[in-house]
Amino acid sequence: MTTIKSLYLEQAQLENKTVQLSAWVRTNRAQKEFGFLAINDGTTLSTLQVVYESSLSNFEDVQKIRVGSSVEIEGIFVLTPEMKQPFEIKATKVVLLGDSPENYPIQPKRHTREFLREVAHLRPRTNLFNAVFRLRSVAAFSIHKFFQEKGFVYFHAPLITGNDGEGAGEMFAVTTLPLDNVPKDEFGNVDFKKDFFARRTNLTVTGQLEAEAYALAFRNVYTFGPTFRAENSNTQKHASEFWMIEPEMAFTDLEGNMQVAEEMVKFVVADVLKQMPEEIDFFDQFVEKGLRAKLEALVGSKFHRVTHHDAIQILKDSKRKFENKPEFGQDLATEHEKFLTEEYFKSPVFVTNWPKEIKAFYMRLNDDQKTVAAVDLLVPGSGELIGGSQREERLDYLVKRMDELHIPKEDLEWYLDLRRFGGCVHSGFGMGFERLLMYLSGVENIRDVIPFPRTPRHAEF
Amino acid sequence: MTTIKSLYLEQAQLENKTVQLSAWVRTNRAQKEFGFLAINDGTTLSTLQVVYESSLSNFEDVQKIRVGSSVEIEGIFVLTPEMKQPFEIKATKVVLLGDSPENYPIQPKRHTREFLREVAHLRPRTNLFNAVFRLRSVAAFSIHKFFQEKGFVYFHAPLITGNDGEGAGEMFAVTTLPLDNVPKDEFGNVDFKKDFFARRTNLTVTGQLEAEAYALAFRNVYTFGPTFRAENSNTQKHASEFWMIEPEMAFTDLEGNMQVAEEMVKFVVADVLKQMPEEIDFFDQFVEKGLRAKLEALVGSKFHRVTHHDAIQILKDSKRKFENKPEFGQDLATEHEKFLTEEYFKSPVFVTNWPKEIKAFYMRLNDDQKTVAAVDLLVPGSGELIGGSQREERLDYLVKRMDELHIPKEDLEWYLDLRRFGGCVHSGFGMGFERLLMYLSGVENIRDVIPFPRTPRHAEF
Repeated sequence: MTTIKSLYLEQAQLENKTVQLSAWVRTNRAQKEFGFLAINDGTTLSTLQVVYESSLSNFEDVQKIRVGSSVEIEGIFVLTPEMKQPFEIKATKVVLLGDSPENYPIQPKRHTREFLREVAHLRPRTNLFNAVFRLRSVAAFSIHKFFQEKGFVYFHAPLITGNDGEGAGEMFAVTTLPLDNVPKDEFGNVDFKKDFFARRTNLTVTGQLEAEAYALAFRNVYTFGPTFRAENSNTQKHASEFWMIEPEMAFTDLEGNMQVAEEMVKFVVADVLKQMPEEIDFFDQFVEKGLRAKLEALVGSKFHRVTHHDAIQILKDSKRKFENKPEFGQDLATEHEKFLTEEYFKSPVFVTNWPKEIKAFYMRLNDDQKTVAAVDLLVPGSGELIGGSQREERLDYLVKRMDELHIPKEDLEWYLDLRRFGGCVHSGFGMGFERLLMYLSGVENIRDVIPFPRTPRHAEF
Repeated sequence: MTTIKSLYLEQAQLENKTVQLSAWVRTNRAQKEFGFLAINDGTTLSTLQVVYESSLSNFEDVQKIRVGSSVEIEGIFVLTPEMKQPFEIKATKVVLLGDSPENYPIQPKRHTREFLREVAHLRPRTNLFNAVFRLRSVAAFSIHKFFQEKGFVYFHAPLITGNDGEGAGEMFAVTTLPLDNVPKDEFGNVDFKKDFFARRTNLTVTGQLEAEAYALAFRNVYTFGPTFRAENSNTQKHASEFWMIEPEMAFTDLEGNMQVAEEMVKFVVADVLKQMPEEIDFFDQFVEKGLRAKLEALVGSKFHRVTHHDAIQILKDSKRKFENKPEFGQDLATEHEKFLTEEYFKSPVFVTNWPKEIKAFYMRLNDDQKTVAAVDLLVPGSGELIGGSQREERLDYLVKRMDELHIPKEDLEWYLDLRRFGGCVHSGFGMGFERLLMYLSGVENIRDVIPFPRTPRHAEF
């Protein structure tokens, strides 16, 4: 038993040899005296052509095999240099393993992505989602390779957290209290002492704070795991459950942080270009024209660096009419990001030193007392891909900022400890894995790069 | 700026060269005219000795540097072939970066593991947890390497699930309903339509069912992600949040399943032995005597196969007095597993074909109508490491079994679809990642191989 992938790898040695395969039928073009099965076994994007003839003892049954069925094939491997596909199989045996009915949802025609989301358990059987979810796997491994080769320690942050003050967004509660009869204490409040963890717990919005603890022991660490947001926003870019990569590095300042981010993005893009040329061509042809050129340009480009102040100045000086007027002290809108990356710099851009008011409490205050050592990486075509910062390592500054923002310190004493016990300059960033996949594939809706997406009112499968 | 790891790798070229390091102080032995800092920067298990002398302009301050402080060191690299450590640094500069107070919890003495769990944010700064959590990272990457090199697609199963019937254990509810005032419908039941996902949702106990959908598209897939159990059991082996690896393979029967499991375990053990000899020696010396020999034996051993029936017969025939009497139709107790792996087979053992009553609904019924094509892998020293099965691919058998066990089918229609649309023989298994780490390190409590463990009444940090 072999795979279609193996046939590609070993084609030079296979001419006229007998091979055995199991796969699913994508199409069956039955003629009078012969027919063609296009089969796919999931190991490649391409299908394989199987020619069958009336000499097969079960020829009539084979003619009736429907799309979606699983089959076992035995046949002769034949090189076909004159055709589009480099080889085909002349069947000596075709066995139907698992039937598929007339109403099988994935027919060989164009389906809308909306429809395919409704059959998310079947959509990886289409070309688009075969390519997307193979990309997801290859890119995930690329990220691990990058960090492991640099000696980073892979750290699993907890998913269930008692920290309320992570401040990155709305949280889901995790509980075993009976929802139809929640126990109350003597003051009428929810009696969390009776809950599983004897406290209020949520699903984490970031593994960063815990990763900092590990960076202050291992120097360089990274997380790669799920995070959650209970935000009721139905956009193309937001999901309630998604995967994040969060490296954290001790003895590293904002500049060092940016260097690692730039290296990582280039490594992953170059690796994906190398590992999956067929899928990238497919995306280039059917999803985003020019994708390959975009990715190749990124690998060779210099990532520019500009302060938030100067970025706003550039936008103001551009005389461009923006729907959102660029303002010092304000966040960048999508149209601003687009202008900076696609028109002004024509490259990825690190925007640094953001107004402290619009950034998180743990970011290091700059000497101007107005900005923090934060950085966003903007990329052409996708906007923000990465957000990071140098962390506030000075205990007094950190406490002051937490007080200003009314962040409760009780649950975060351990986080303050990291500044009390051998604290040091340290930095890190977060990259939403799905953002990366959307950039790499051109796919525009986050629901189409997560196998079973969770969004408001949607947790099917 | 270099790292201690780099010094080890480049020592042949460094004699008498000046190097710069940042690290944390493990001990400071200050003498009258000189002193020794043992420093660790997290890149190795070993500490590095830094010799400083009274010629340093800040000699008196350096003498006072406390354990746990972060420091920057500049000095001359000197090979010390006559000493235990292969080299040391003669300091030309020592700068205190971050102080650590007298009451720093991690002092250079033996701490109990119970105490260290209370300071889980600091425990990776000890030798034991430095070794354990580097092992966690290296072993995780090993697993990815194994599957990626074999062409498996890494699949991210959803964490939040609307499936009630996974049947692998108690679940945590995930909700955004206000717990102090849960909305009720007209019948007085919780009004889940008002919840975030407009339905009751939980944290998943397994990614297997969704992985099956992907195996029936990609042939070979694996998950590696967190899973959850809301079981109120305080044992050394159980945590409420842990990571699982769940490969799932189309066109693969129970025998093929066992082959992949055996190959995977041997690959990971061999890779860990190769990648981290220092840590394995450390575990062998301080955690489990004979660990290295155990692991090396496993790599070279043949994994035996025995049916559950024959295993029970072997136990009965052994004339051994067990606390739990071995019985056909019953599960194996720890003492039984111990006898089979450590005394009878003296090797890892696959126990196959279990009584259907004690196994999950999705396991394939054998022709005897009494057992299912399930398999547990038992290993010497740890008992069950892996559980798997051939999945029931026959729709009628699966539906019948779900009905017998009163498993609601409404939420699992998509799972049944996998049998309706091109179904095929397929198999898979699950390995608890922490079980593997406990086996690899000899560490006996699961709380000590998870960075921030979650167990009943514990969700600190």
